[in-house]
Formats: sequence, C-alpha cells, structure tokens
Amino acid sequence: MELLKTLCSIQATSGDEAAMTDFILDHVQKNKSDWKVQPEIIHGEGFQDAIILVFGKPRTAIFAHMDNIGYAVSYGKNLVRIGGPRGESGWRLVGKDSQGEIDCKLSVRWLWADGNKKEELKYRFNRKIDRGTPLSFKPNFRDKEKSVQSPYLDNRLGVWNALQVAQTLEDGIIVFSTYEEVGGGSVQFLAKYIQEKYGIKQALISDITLATDGVKPKKGVAISMRDKGVPRQSYLRKIIQLARENKIPYQLEVEDAGGSDGTVLQHSSGVWDWCFIGPPEQNYHTPNEKAWKVDIQAMNDLYALLMKKL
Amino acid sequence: MELLKTLCSIQATSGDEAAMTDFILDHVQKNKSDWKVQPEIIHGEGFQDAIILVFGKPRTAIFAHMDNIGYAVSYGKNLVRIGGPRGESGWRLVGKDSQGEIDCKLSVRWLWADGNKKEELKYRFNRKIDRGTPLSFKPNFRDKEKSVQSPYLDNRLGVWNALQVAQTLEDGIIVFSTYEEVGGGSVQFLAKYIQEKYGIKQALISDITLATDGVKPKKGVAISMRDKGVPRQSYLRKIIQLARENKIPYQLEVEDAGGSDGTVLQHSSGVWDWCFIGPPEQNYHTPNEKAWKVDIQAMNDLYALLMKKL
Amino acid sequence: MELLKTLCSIQATSGDEAAMTDFILDHVQKNKSDWKVQPEIIHGEGFQDAIILVFGKPRTAIFAHMDNIGYAVSYGKNLVRIGGPRGESGWRLVGKDSQGEIDCKLSVRWLWADGNKKEELKYRFNRKIDRGTPLSFKPNFRDKEKSVQSPYLDNRLGVWNALQVAQTLEDGIIVFSTYEEVGGGSVQFLAKYIQEKYGIKQALISDITLATDGVKPKKGVAISMRDKGVPRQSYLRKIIQLARENKIPYQLEVEDAGGSDGTVLQHSSGVWDWCFIGPPEQNYHTPNEKAWKVDIQAMNDLYALLMKKL
Repeated sequence: MELLKTLCSIQATSGDEAAMTDFILDHVQKNKSDWKVQPEIIHGEGFQDAIILVFGKPRTAIFAHMDNIGYAVSYGKNLVRIGGPRGESGWRLVGKDSQGEIDCKLSVRWLWADGNKKEELKYRFNRKIDRGTPLSFKPNFRDKEKSVQSPYLDNRLGVWNALQVAQTLEDGIIVFSTYEEVGGGSVQFLAKYIQEKYGIKQALISDITLATDGVKPKKGVAISMRDKGVPRQSYLRKIIQLARENKIPYQLEVEDAGGSDGTVLQHSSGVWDWCFIGPPEQNYHTPNEKAWKVDIQAMNDLYALLMKKL
Repeated sequence: MELLKTLCSIQATSGDEAAMTDFILDHVQKNKSDWKVQPEIIHGEGFQDAIILVFGKPRTAIFAHMDNIGYAVSYGKNLVRIGGPRGESGWRLVGKDSQGEIDCKLSVRWLWADGNKKEELKYRFNRKIDRGTPLSFKPNFRDKEKSVQSPYLDNRLGVWNALQVAQTLEDGIIVFSTYEEVGGGSVQFLAKYIQEKYGIKQALISDITLATDGVKPKKGVAISMRDKGVPRQSYLRKIIQLARENKIPYQLEVEDAGGSDGTVLQHSSGVWDWCFIGPPEQNYHTPNEKAWKVDIQAMNDLYALLMKKL
Repeated sequence: MELLKTLCSIQATSGDEAAMTDFILDHVQKNKSDWKVQPEIIHGEGFQDAIILVFGKPRTAIFAHMDNIGYAVSYGKNLVRIGGPRGESGWRLVGKDSQGEIDCKLSVRWLWADGNKKEELKYRFNRKIDRGTPLSFKPNFRDKEKSVQSPYLDNRLGVWNALQVAQTLEDGIIVFSTYEEVGGGSVQFLAKYIQEKYGIKQALISDITLATDGVKPKKGVAISMRDKGVPRQSYLRKIIQLARENKIPYQLEVEDAGGSDGTVLQHSSGVWDWCFIGPPEQNYHTPNEKAWKVDIQAMNDLYALLMKKL
C-alpha cells in the first residue's frame, strides 16, 4: 500500500498532470526489471503528459486516468471546480503559487440565484493566492486492515491496479490518460495511436465507481454494463462469463448516468469495445474516499485474468 | 409491408443489435440477385454490428440506424431507460434472460426528489429478471389502408426505406448503424471508413421525426433544415430544390432540439454535408408509433431521386 | 476600422457562411501583395466554407470563426435561435428570402410551461417570411475614440485580428472556421488537416469573451486559463510568461462555463495545446457588443508576439 499512498499524495489536477507523469515514468524505470516482460515506454512530444506502456503482442488496452478533481482560484477569493468535487466547508486544500506553498481551507455557501441553488466556493487563507492556481485535497491516507481511505482513490487506485497488473503482464497495453475529470482530451489521440499502430480494439477502464443500493462495498469488483452510454453488450457478456467461470467476486452495475474514459472511446473515431471495471467506493469525490481490500483484490485478479483471456 | 412488419418485431436495443444485423445480412443475400446492382457487403471484424453496402461508384451515403429504444433491468425490479422511451404503466415489454423468454409489464410512477420530478420505472413479472437484461416493446404491427402503426417504426421504417432504395440503386452507399438512440458510437468510424475509402462527403439520414404543429402527418416527407445542430444550408437548399422541381410532397422542418446520426457526422473528424429526411410520426417513442403511407411513399421517392441527382 | 465595419455588416449565420468566405478570399487576394509573406490559400472542395492560410514554416495556428448568431424562421411567425442571442423585443433583424430583402423586428415573450420559463420568439414584419430563412442583427457600427460598438464583434473582431496579424506573419497558419456558434462542425477536419500535413500542435483561439467581475473592459486582453474545459496548463503558463515579459496588458480569465473552437480541439482526435485569447466585451451576444481599443491593441500585439515566440 506504500505505492498507493504515494500516488494519492501527488497533486495532479486535470490539465496539470506532469507530477504524476514524472512519478509513473520513474516508477516504471526503477521497477520494470522485476516485471515479467519489459514494456516499450511511449511518452513525450506528441503525447502531452500521457504515457503508453506496450507489453509483448497486445490485444487489449487498460486505460487509467492520472488526473484528480480539485479547485482553481478564479477572481478574488473565489474558486471554481475542476471536475465534480462534492465540497464541504472546512476541507483542507493544498497547492503552490508564485509565493510558495499553500495549505488553506474550503468555504462553501449555498445561494439562491434566479430560482436556482448555486454553490459559492471560496478559500480561506492568510494571503491572496495567484489567479488560476489549482488546489487539491490535502493528502490523508488511512490504511486499515480491511479498507483504504484517502483523497483520490479515484483514480490513483485505478493507476495502482494497472501498475500491479504490469508486473506479470505478457501481452497488453497500459495507457495512463489525462483530463478525464473534465470530460477528456487525450484518450481520443491515445486510442487512435494504439489502434492504428497495434490494431487494438478492446479496452478495459481501470477506474473507481460509486457504492450504491445496487453495487455495494465488499461484494466484489463492479463490472459496469452501462452508464450514460451503452457499450456493446456482447463484449460485456464475454467479460462477465470469464469472471463467473473463474469465481472472481463481481457485481453488475447498471446505471443511466456517469461517464469515463470509456465514454470518450465510444464517441471516438475508432472501433472500440470497452468495459468499465472498478471497485465501488464510499464518499465518492470527497477527501474521504473509501474502498475495501477484498474488492481491490478482486479488481487485480479480474484484470490479470482478462488481459490473458480476452 | 411484410418486410417492415418483420423488421419491427426484431429486438435490437442499442448496444445489442446482432439480431438485426443477422436479419439484414440474410435479407440482402436472399434478395440482392433481384437488385439492379449487386452491392459489396462490408461487415464483421472492425465494423462491430454495423453493415455497409456499396453500390457502383458511390457519391452519397444513406445512414439508417438499426437499434431501438427500450429498458434495461437494473437493481431489484427497477429499470433504466435505453434511449428516450416515453413510458406509461401497462406497456408490454419482451426480452430474454438466463431463465428464458420474458413478457412483462412496465410500471411508471412519478416521484419528487430534491424539488425535481423523477420517473420511477419498474417491471411487473412473475419472476426475477437477470440484471442488465434489455427489454423491448412487444411487437404489435397494424397495417391499415393509409397508415402503419407499430413499435419501432423509429427506425425500422428508415431501415426499410434504405432496403427499398437498394433495389434500384446504381451508385451509392447504405450504412446500417448502431447505438443511435444512446448518442452514437459507430457512425464515427463508419463515416471515416467510407470517406477515406470512397471519398464520400454527402449523407442522407434515413430516420423518423415527430409530427408537430409545423410538420404534420400526410403533408409529405420532412426535410429537416436543422435540429439542435445546424448543417450546411447550401446542401439543404440543393435537396429542397430537387424535391420541389420533381414535385415530391415534402415539408420543411426547423427545430432547435433533437439529434440523429447526422449530429455525429457534424462532430466527426470528417468533412460531411448531411440532411435528415424522414416521415413525421405520431406517438413518437411509444409502442404506438404511427406513420402515413403517403409520407412513406414520398420518402422512398425522394431518396431514389437524391441518390441519382446529388 | 473600415475593414472591421465591413466584416460586421456581412450576414453569415452558422451553416450559412459563404458570404464571409467570399469576402475574406477577396480581401486576401487584394491585400496579400502588401504582406510580408504570401500565404498558401486552401479552400473549396473538402473544406466546405472554411479557409486556411499557410505562411512560411508554421508552428502555431490561429483559429477565428466566421459565423454569427441569429435566428431562423420556423413555423408561422416563430423563430428559433441560431446559437445563443440574448433576445429583446424591438431588435432589428435582416435577411433575404425568395421574395426579397427583409428588415423586420424581433418580439420576445416569456411563457411558463411545465414549471419552466420559456422564451417565445417571433418576428414582426409586413409579410410572411420563408420557413428556414436565417436572420441576423441589422448592421449598426459605432466607431468611437476609445471603443467600437456593433453587432457581431463576436467574432468579426477575431477575424479582423487574424487579418491584422497576417500582414507581418512569417511562419504560421490562420484558420477561418464555421459553425462555431452552434457547437462546431469544421474545426475537427481543419485541425486534422493541418496537424497531419504540417505537424501543427499549438493553437490560439482568436475570439471574444464576456466582460465580468474578473475580466474588465480596458484592463487588457483576456487570456483564458479555462472555461468549461481545462486545456493543458503548461502551455498557458508559457503564454502568460511571454505576455508578462513583453509588458503586453493582459488579464487572466478563469471560468467554469463557456466553450469555443478550443473545446472542439480538446475533444478532437488530434494532439492539441490551445488557448483562448481575446478582448472582454460588454453586451455580449446583443446588437450592442462593445470592445475597447486598448484591449484590441493588446490582442493584436500579443498574437503577433506569440506567433513569433511559441
């Protein structure tokens, strides 16, 4: 869990992922000699801050987004949201601007404007913060016997899962993407690149979902049959059958809202079968995101299996 | 109308179009020897469940989506919508799961949550249905002297229109697409394929529209000048002029909402002129969709004309 | 300001940009001999109504949209909006249909339907207008000592800025795009073309923004750090640093709504760094859009600088 803890402590709001990129590149360089297969590492010019790892003869790609939600300083002490944090007064936010390190507090008020409820978001700090500065939840990793709790399990757990799978992966691609929390911006060209160069048409979205009445903590990894988009069901049924046959604890998710890097694949100019697979978490998009180790283990196992069998 | 009746009876919710794909492929194989020109048939690997028919030296492509709206079983007896059905309690829904055939009823209740009206959708049936199972409206085709009425005229009538045009088509492409009712997912790559391979830049969207105050039943096929998107008007004016000169009954539609496979073309990475042309129907997105034969005839005539003249 | 005045008087609602295309092509032909570098002019078949000018060895592209907001005649005397005009009764609208020139008035009423406030838009005129006819704000250019005021500064000022920059541009691309006010439709293929042919990955969006509490008239050109999308911040920081070092008056914009041709680049299949840079204007999307010459000068200066330095 040390790796996950470190991943959760890195600030990488959407559009500003360079710190995560550097950390992952460094991690891969330091650890790949212990991996079963040495991947080709693709990054830099033409890939922005994203990373592609290519193992052996790939048939399927894992997509894990590196960015996190947060806030950006706008005018005066006002903040705008980066992605969809569920703000509460008192949350600790950290960042850095021209004057140095920042450790401030979030203040939330609900106002009525034109008959609509509107969130007023401000920071409280002992000085002014530069306009445009991104702020992230302050790291606070809690490793317990049966669970982990931290800001940004979404999606550092998805990144961590991909890095776990990397250790034994023989054939496959891992894509670390950017901008996911603000609707995407890199998966289109990353997907195009790996489809044109390697002929990949199958994707797994390594990401985190909400615990709900239908998808409960400790009941297995969630395989999403749909969210606001509906992927090709024949591909999902193949995945579900593999999970069932191999006795991996899983739950089926069927929602009519929400999106992911899978949504971007669905609307890209490529030919993609995709499936979102991840653990349900409590306190979604807060500093107290909580996932259960039994579900995380199921996630690892299912990804390892699918990368072999699909 | 036998062909249309059969098309309307096939279950093919978005993402699950294989039954329609098989039926159309079989129909083309059985009938193409009677057609003026034998098309090249493109499908399978790299095209998911979509089909492309290429006739002669194509200049224009017809897009007709194969999928239908419906419901998917979520948690307990709850349903989520596939696309935008306008649900009413008592509607008959059919499908199939691991335990066999399903013929159940829809139950709709309106609830208030957080100041918003929200639809609660459930099924009523004598057993539990597998999570994720798609349900479609029960077939109920009514062929009358002047009209047809059935679930899924949208878009089996658009598919049927394309298959009618196919009989005499010399130069052109017909694309049977998927996922349209949930916002698309195949037109991007289908359009890319035919633009790169055949240089096609002109499209006609063979689909069904709503009867409104401005576009009335029995007044001719609707030529849509815009919906939520605005296509290039010079292309539309060419189409309107051809319809007028050839005395085909038509009506001009001008709306500020709604989308189609045309919307996907508009936002694709290709260079597309497109126009939505289809009959107005009553009881849109219900099991009682009704279109008038005079409008359907006008639709056939206009497509045959445009595929020659554009 | 004569050129800007003429640009503001041309009717070119989204989807109907041909008059602007013709004017710009003519302007370029007449003036390019006075420019520092003669650009290659790309337009016509395969580019719809858009234009690309290529100067020298380009590294960065300026995107300026040619289309304007307005209204289209729908059923009876009803209008639907083209883009997002902020309508008020009495505004003068002009256009042309099969019976000749139109100079009519807008009528706006607010109705309540299903608990929602809804705009009812009609025209008042001495005759019926053809269905589908586009209407634009009547030209009304006011050139004052310190400001300009006119319908369609958005985005004729962005077009004008690009044409100013063209005079001294050595290496770069200028793209005149279409459909921007209705969500786009040409930038995808224009961006693809220049990225594949010239390897361009950097874009500047020459467009107009709203004056707000944070971005005020006469305080310099606005550099947008984000709107509803979040572009790569490292690119923005490079731009901001160049503006600061060169003492060009600028303001940083940080909003959570709004889009532009930049949004289309962000979601395209290409690899794009982009930044929206334009003057703040008062009375946004009305016939009385007002911008200040000091901000326009800063815009010109910043574009000239960035096209050299980026």
